[in-house]
Amino acid sequence: MRDTFHDELDQIGAALIEMSRLVGTAMSTATTALLNADLTLSEEVIASDDKVNLLHQETEERAFDLLARQQPVAGDLRVIITGLRMVASLERMGDLAVHIAKIARLRYPDPAVPSEVRDVIKQMGVVAQNIVTKAGAVLAGHDIELAAELERDDDAMDALHKKLFTIVLDKDWQYGVEAAIDVTLLGRFYERYADHAVSLSRRVVQLVTGELPAS
Amino acid sequence: MRDTFHDELDQIGAALIEMSRLVGTAMSTATTALLNADLTLSEEVIASDDKVNLLHQETEERAFDLLARQQPVAGDLRVIITGLRMVASLERMGDLAVHIAKIARLRYPDPAVPSEVRDVIKQMGVVAQNIVTKAGAVLAGHDIELAAELERDDDAMDALHKKLFTIVLDKDWQYGVEAAIDVTLLGRFYERYADHAVSLSRRVVQLVTGELPAS
Repeated sequence: MRDTFHDELDQIGAALIEMSRLVGTAMSTATTALLNADLTLSEEVIASDDKVNLLHQETEERAFDLLARQQPVAGDLRVIITGLRMVASLERMGDLAVHIAKIARLRYPDPAVPSEVRDVIKQMGVVAQNIVTKAGAVLAGHDIELAAELERDDDAMDALHKKLFTIVLDKDWQYGVEAAIDVTLLGRFYERYADHAVSLSRRVVQLVTGELPAS
Repeated sequence: MRDTFHDELDQIGAALIEMSRLVGTAMSTATTALLNADLTLSEEVIASDDKVNLLHQETEERAFDLLARQQPVAGDLRVIITGLRMVASLERMGDLAVHIAKIARLRYPDPAVPSEVRDVIKQMGVVAQNIVTKAGAVLAGHDIELAAELERDDDAMDALHKKLFTIVLDKDWQYGVEAAIDVTLLGRFYERYADHAVSLSRRVVQLVTGELPAS
């Protein structure tokens, strides 16, 4: 039988996994909203962030309570502190999906993404989805091998981010400065989202192996 | 006489103040490097981030040790956890100053900032400097009134950020897409830097008043 302490720790873990699911859905919906200039979906992403923020707050409070009441020893302590950091990363990932949805909403009914970069943005959305799904699985199962895959996905995201700039900076770019700004910000949001997912996964690795994460 | 525990807590506080000083210098040097297209200063900012990262790591480890060895009660616990979050914000602020210095270096010997936005960027640099200096003072003295000032500085930063977009999106913008991208990213880096400084200050307020910060 588990004790109360470890039950509460499990609840924090479950909240993190649920948050990774929510910010994954937010990101994939935001990408669809962006590519299809879909106002309803944009609003959906923006509204759904409340749920992420609530889980963030609840999980923080639960972690504080647990620390204060139970005075956990080193190993458990590290798990809780790491959980607090992860919850902050997940909250930020939700914000980044909202930023993307807001750009889609701002340009509606026009698409924010010119046809020439659609494909790269679409791929960035796919990679973001892969990364967050794997980060959720790493969180759920402490699967170190998946964590290595996730690092490679992040390299793919960086390559797509570079490709985006190459297109926007090409002399044939014909969509003007406004679209260039939108695409620059969008690229940054996808890239930061992936960075946070990688940091989540590294923190799990750190917990499992005891090694400090590379970043 | 102070006990060892509170001496160590003071050392964490001193490290946070020192980090705020370092990332303040990094930001003001990065702004000068940017405005003067100064390669030496750019490199200086980039190299100096090692010191911030080292302090980040040392302070994290000290906080973990303290938590594990001393099993602090609720109030002290909250101080340490908050310190861990602050150290993460400060580390990120250092990164943002480096991002700015890297844009200056990338465009060297040309200036990355066209003459038309020089003044706004200069002001953003000044506001960033004000904010981080006040955040350092809030950290050092738990001065709640200064924290309110800092929120107003952040509003000023947001207004400058908007102004930047107005200039870049004006039909008379003559510097092309590359400069627009640089300016977009620079604007975002200054704005995020200020956000992190505000979050530092809010966390101090939270510790002093017991109220959760607004973000």
